[in-house]
Amino acid sequence: MSSEQKSQNKAPSGSVDSGITLINPHRKISGSDQANVKHIENATRRTSSGQTLRNEDAELFPEEGNGAGLQNAPTQETEHSHKSQEELQHESHISNLRQSVGLPDELPIAEQHEETERFNWPTFRLIFREPFAEFFGTFVMVLFGNGSVAQVLLSGRQASAPGGDGYGSYQSINWGWGVGIFFGIYIAGDSGGFLNPAVTLGFCLFRGLPWRRFPIYFLAQFLGGFVASGVVYANYINAIDQFEGHGIRTVAPSPTATASIFCTYPQPFLSKTSQFFSEFIASAILMFVVFALKDDSNPGAMGKTGAGALFPLGLFLLIFGLGISFGWDTGYAINLARDFSPRLMSYILGYGPGVWSAGGYYFWIPLVAPFCGCVFGGFLYDAFIYTGPESPLNKKWWGFKELYENSRRHQESKRLEKRRYDA
Amino acid sequence: MSSEQKSQNKAPSGSVDSGITLINPHRKISGSDQANVKHIENATRRTSSGQTLRNEDAELFPEEGNGAGLQNAPTQETEHSHKSQEELQHESHISNLRQSVGLPDELPIAEQHEETERFNWPTFRLIFREPFAEFFGTFVMVLFGNGSVAQVLLSGRQASAPGGDGYGSYQSINWGWGVGIFFGIYIAGDSGGFLNPAVTLGFCLFRGLPWRRFPIYFLAQFLGGFVASGVVYANYINAIDQFEGHGIRTVAPSPTATASIFCTYPQPFLSKTSQFFSEFIASAILMFVVFALKDDSNPGAMGKTGAGALFPLGLFLLIFGLGISFGWDTGYAINLARDFSPRLMSYILGYGPGVWSAGGYYFWIPLVAPFCGCVFGGFLYDAFIYTGPESPLNKKWWGFKELYENSRRHQESKRLEKRRYDA
Amino acid sequence: MSSEQKSQNKAPSGSVDSGITLINPHRKISGSDQANVKHIENATRRTSSGQTLRNEDAELFPEEGNGAGLQNAPTQETEHSHKSQEELQHESHISNLRQSVGLPDELPIAEQHEETERFNWPTFRLIFREPFAEFFGTFVMVLFGNGSVAQVLLSGRQASAPGGDGYGSYQSINWGWGVGIFFGIYIAGDSGGFLNPAVTLGFCLFRGLPWRRFPIYFLAQFLGGFVASGVVYANYINAIDQFEGHGIRTVAPSPTATASIFCTYPQPFLSKTSQFFSEFIASAILMFVVFALKDDSNPGAMGKTGAGALFPLGLFLLIFGLGISFGWDTGYAINLARDFSPRLMSYILGYGPGVWSAGGYYFWIPLVAPFCGCVFGGFLYDAFIYTGPESPLNKKWWGFKELYENSRRHQESKRLEKRRYDA
Amino acid sequence: MSSEQKSQNKAPSGSVDSGITLINPHRKISGSDQANVKHIENATRRTSSGQTLRNEDAELFPEEGNGAGLQNAPTQETEHSHKSQEELQHESHISNLRQSVGLPDELPIAEQHEETERFNWPTFRLIFREPFAEFFGTFVMVLFGNGSVAQVLLSGRQASAPGGDGYGSYQSINWGWGVGIFFGIYIAGDSGGFLNPAVTLGFCLFRGLPWRRFPIYFLAQFLGGFVASGVVYANYINAIDQFEGHGIRTVAPSPTATASIFCTYPQPFLSKTSQFFSEFIASAILMFVVFALKDDSNPGAMGKTGAGALFPLGLFLLIFGLGISFGWDTGYAINLARDFSPRLMSYILGYGPGVWSAGGYYFWIPLVAPFCGCVFGGFLYDAFIYTGPESPLNKKWWGFKELYENSRRHQESKRLEKRRYDA
Repeated sequence: MSSEQKSQNKAPSGSVDSGITLINPHRKISGSDQANVKHIENATRRTSSGQTLRNEDAELFPEEGNGAGLQNAPTQETEHSHKSQEELQHESHISNLRQSVGLPDELPIAEQHEETERFNWPTFRLIFREPFAEFFGTFVMVLFGNGSVAQVLLSGRQASAPGGDGYGSYQSINWGWGVGIFFGIYIAGDSGGFLNPAVTLGFCLFRGLPWRRFPIYFLAQFLGGFVASGVVYANYINAIDQFEGHGIRTVAPSPTATASIFCTYPQPFLSKTSQFFSEFIASAILMFVVFALKDDSNPGAMGKTGAGALFPLGLFLLIFGLGISFGWDTGYAINLARDFSPRLMSYILGYGPGVWSAGGYYFWIPLVAPFCGCVFGGFLYDAFIYTGPESPLNKKWWGFKELYENSRRHQESKRLEKRRYDA
Repeated sequence: MSSEQKSQNKAPSGSVDSGITLINPHRKISGSDQANVKHIENATRRTSSGQTLRNEDAELFPEEGNGAGLQNAPTQETEHSHKSQEELQHESHISNLRQSVGLPDELPIAEQHEETERFNWPTFRLIFREPFAEFFGTFVMVLFGNGSVAQVLLSGRQASAPGGDGYGSYQSINWGWGVGIFFGIYIAGDSGGFLNPAVTLGFCLFRGLPWRRFPIYFLAQFLGGFVASGVVYANYINAIDQFEGHGIRTVAPSPTATASIFCTYPQPFLSKTSQFFSEFIASAILMFVVFALKDDSNPGAMGKTGAGALFPLGLFLLIFGLGISFGWDTGYAINLARDFSPRLMSYILGYGPGVWSAGGYYFWIPLVAPFCGCVFGGFLYDAFIYTGPESPLNKKWWGFKELYENSRRHQESKRLEKRRYDA
Repeated sequence: MSSEQKSQNKAPSGSVDSGITLINPHRKISGSDQANVKHIENATRRTSSGQTLRNEDAELFPEEGNGAGLQNAPTQETEHSHKSQEELQHESHISNLRQSVGLPDELPIAEQHEETERFNWPTFRLIFREPFAEFFGTFVMVLFGNGSVAQVLLSGRQASAPGGDGYGSYQSINWGWGVGIFFGIYIAGDSGGFLNPAVTLGFCLFRGLPWRRFPIYFLAQFLGGFVASGVVYANYINAIDQFEGHGIRTVAPSPTATASIFCTYPQPFLSKTSQFFSEFIASAILMFVVFALKDDSNPGAMGKTGAGALFPLGLFLLIFGLGISFGWDTGYAINLARDFSPRLMSYILGYGPGVWSAGGYYFWIPLVAPFCGCVFGGFLYDAFIYTGPESPLNKKWWGFKELYENSRRHQESKRLEKRRYDA
Repeated sequence: MSSEQKSQNKAPSGSVDSGITLINPHRKISGSDQANVKHIENATRRTSSGQTLRNEDAELFPEEGNGAGLQNAPTQETEHSHKSQEELQHESHISNLRQSVGLPDELPIAEQHEETERFNWPTFRLIFREPFAEFFGTFVMVLFGNGSVAQVLLSGRQASAPGGDGYGSYQSINWGWGVGIFFGIYIAGDSGGFLNPAVTLGFCLFRGLPWRRFPIYFLAQFLGGFVASGVVYANYINAIDQFEGHGIRTVAPSPTATASIFCTYPQPFLSKTSQFFSEFIASAILMFVVFALKDDSNPGAMGKTGAGALFPLGLFLLIFGLGISFGWDTGYAINLARDFSPRLMSYILGYGPGVWSAGGYYFWIPLVAPFCGCVFGGFLYDAFIYTGPESPLNKKWWGFKELYENSRRHQESKRLEKRRYDA
């Protein structure tokens, strides 16, 4: 039996034998949960000589291969062997802390970056890296978004502007939010949160993002929008003073109202149903399209794997388009972190109770409708197009059976444990 | 003779011997018809040692390789072997149903997605997956498109808008339709329909898309536009009431007409010929450019394979550009699903017979002209630039000979069958 | 000696021995002249076992690999062997005809496309394929460009438009030309002409595009712009009639002038020098940036190979940007095919001698200045940044020595021939 | 022991044995300093047979592989061997000159380009290639930027424009600067300077760009902006004369002021603090986002390696977005080369001392604030997200320890040298 044949026989376990792990460490590192595990773990293609020629995954995302090479097995082993007991303990400590706040226990750091010794701060940062990314992503998004509203509103039709017609029009606001999410996604996109609690919910429900991660992402997103709107206020405080009068801050019906810099207010002619429907439909489109751009198995979609590296551009156009087509009625809030957080900030800054009562206590609509819309949009996509097994719609009894079995198994194990205890 | 040499001798049949099939399953799955078979089936490059190193095709579309690894032969064999007789029967049942409505008989689902047990609904969905994709693609396109018209028209020059000049201008409508087709293509693009019956026709005529698939795509596109315009109406019903007066719905000559939210109406100074020509020329450009973006063999085109992953962006700019350069005269309908379907919806919603009679019964122009224009545009591209064998212009006697021979062979076989019957 | 060692020894000639030619046929087919030969012919990387693992080139342009696999040696050989004597003669006939009009003698058709039998028309088309591509590229560019000017000019501030302010503004024209060149490049880009005789000149001078190809590209570009402006006129004839009055066609100082739909007219306050300078500087930027986007060896440029697949997008933004920053003075003609051809068309259509005399016989400026500007811009780039050997600035005595030696050698050979004749 | 096994045993040193160096020469050539060394030098993946199958790096930047194949070892050796002693001396002479002005000593030229003999000019150019690239990058950026301001300002609301409302609005200026930086980055991007001294500073501080390179980049950027604004003035001199009156040049409070074509002037209602804050926050966003787009190890960022080939597009949208959201207060200077250089030019051109005194001697703000902002933005990114070892925030005692040790070692070596001297 020649060596050639031998290695061929070993093929199924070849990647283990040769000590080469091609599981993308980037993915491992990024705390990829089910949502991101693209069913291609075992997809490594092999040549007849049993060599694992390419990480399939690296091919799908050619720019992602980074980590793959950085952490090939020998390096890893060396790394692990030269790690002191102390270091390993430290790492497992951090892992535990991460798990306790709902984050994946892998450290979100590339192997080769760990060689430098670290302080308390980098340690602390490692625990909260994804939420930090989510915070800054939302922060930058709202910075651009609220900034554009402020500039357009406050400079409206100013004759001394070049071109003689102010520093922007309504369309500038669409661009502003589009650019904002573009950079937000680059900063925090794939962490699973998508800068919007409603989208996070959609991923928890339909793509297996662990539920325990929802609260910390929610907090990060909420704070991102909150702080950003404060920075925008600080930046435009002189201009607001000049527009409204020093110290005067008013809400919508007032002719010099500037509260809409921060959050959305509905058009006066809208019924409550229409307010809700407008936010609902925009959020449904958001979720539906995000799932389409992320769907690597839709045979209809270009015969390719979703939007890939063009995903941030896709979201840019999505938010831009929503602003152009569904932005008038209620201002396409579609995001609690972009509406409720700044609204709270504006209340704190002295805009008065009008921020809550305006539009018939409209403020709860962009709190609730985006969640409903995103769930509906995600449902539509999965019901009609998505075939992946992580969607509950593709599970037996829509996942309820699994849920039931899990809970039964859980109770079983509890009972067993109890019996052992009693024994 | 060493093992190395041995494997080298086996080269020609190496890929079969080693049990590795690298025919992209994604392609197979996607029910790729002639139009999509990119003449590269047998293009797999081999090294001297008989290894099939890379699927060429995967290289062309680096993001498409997804399936390639997912369905390498061992997996497939295992899969097939562990499939019960019942399951296989079920699958062939679905295949038959798909074929009967004009769709390719392969199931449009990635192998690894089939492991979950399925209900009636997923089964039903598998039968109509491409039409569903085409429906939702057209749906989203018209949602963005009609939505942008509604927003611009109804909010026109509203002084309370940020910037003081309404929530958009004519250009916003161009952006809206552009964004709409961008996401439409991501949802349903390569299924062959392209969200427009006239483009489907062009692909049937010039790129070998099976004719039997035309009706179901047509229906899906028609319904997509129809439903979407209804949703837009529902979203802007308060605003339309405020603009026109409660319950009043009027067509073009009326100063508060809102019928143009749904479908196109021509400028009053146009002759019938000009109406037709305007739609004709825009549709011809559409088809010509789509063929150019999809042409992987045009040596003039960047020395590369068409627009590739930038195809949705290309169509975005195409529709945007058509709106900017050929959008005034008749509103660049260029698509029955975007004009006739919403027109019917607006008639049903109570806009009266004016939707048909306006512009001298203009409504038939965007029904007919796009088909003529797309055929002409496709003809131009194939006559002057395209060299692929699936175009009838590159066949002997423009494909008529083939047609004639096929029909003769068909009659022959019929006669034989009959004779056998009689015998 | 093991087989491993053997194959390693053969490495230098390995690719020949194994009968695999990995020279990208696409390139060969496309009649790539020096300008396009990217100095990577011999760049195929080899592993220690003498296998030619990947065509480097295919890696650079991952979407270009198409042909590579289509025409691997075995196929080619078979192809050649099954070609009849007649067919080969036919091919060489076409080659000769192509050469006589200045085109490369290779047939611009992918191998696998030739299997169908052909008529006279496909034969004729093969002779002129690149000029046809250049014609249609320029055609589509001017169609979008002139179309956008017509729409904006004729619909200016029309109150019945959605949004109440016409069907576009000056910026729409910038978008129109940008979109136009985007698709023009996809249709004809890399044929070397770039839809603009001045750019063709730059490539002839600085990138080794054969001079004999200039005339036929020039003609194709000229005709493309000429025909396209006629089509735009036909499309907007009713609207022009309504704007100017039936049958009345006037030039710039007239308040209802529509001649500027076709070609550029300068602002009245410009001196002749400023007219020239404005066109000169815009053309210089055009050439400089095109060379930058195409420069695969500039270490400054992103550490990558120029703009690659984003080249059409780059040109889109370039033309868009020129319109925004240098479009006022003289209308950024920067292209004879976009200015002189439509001007001639407008003269023929009855706009009178004013099309020539306007702006102090300005018409010659966009005929001459783009050539000067493109030469200067190309000179700047090559003098300060480009290091490739095909630029005369990187040759000894700026290529004059080579020129002199070539001509001397030519005379020598002539003299020898003559002597032989005399003998 | 078969040959297969043998080569497998050699695996660790295989790439050396076979004489194949796959270190990307492009990178070596580009004088990549620490900032660009992407920690992946030793990332080359190996198969079990010891073959170096792919340069990982080439996979990350698929379009960068260019050089990889061009300079595989055999070629290189041949090249070096046929280089005369004289040539090598010449090269080392250039290297020394480059080092003396703060540039990396590798020649910034691709190997295959050096075959042509060279004059004095190309030699001179090789010494200053990166600064030249930086100069022209900044030049083109300011050309587009200042050009767009000039066009919009001078043509403001001109009724004879197509569309009847001038040749652009404030938004055109945003597009202009966006397009400008897009091409600037393609011309000079990765040289480390990024067309902005404040960004260069950020890379020196946080990404290990050698400090000695700062001065020459600074000079190149300064001159680029200076010359470009002069060219814009030359282009629009007639128009300025017509707008202001022949020979009259005024600053901001004047109703016909054109000084703002060149540089930024603040809104009159701004306090000094707000002026500073506005520039500070915009610069901080700039640096933060640039670091995010360049961060290949952020697990949050799309699971990929930063923006990659879309980086120029990213910066386009960034500058565009800043103009839309933070462009009103002080005109988003955020760059000395874009504000101070043109301001100096305008002073020289006769705009009087107002260019310095306007806005309460505002001119120093965009000199100082961008540096502060960029340092803060870079600090934020590194403190919360970046984990790479070249950032001082990821070094022990924030790099001070290293600094201290370096200086101690330096003094030690000096003392030793002195002692040896004394001895």
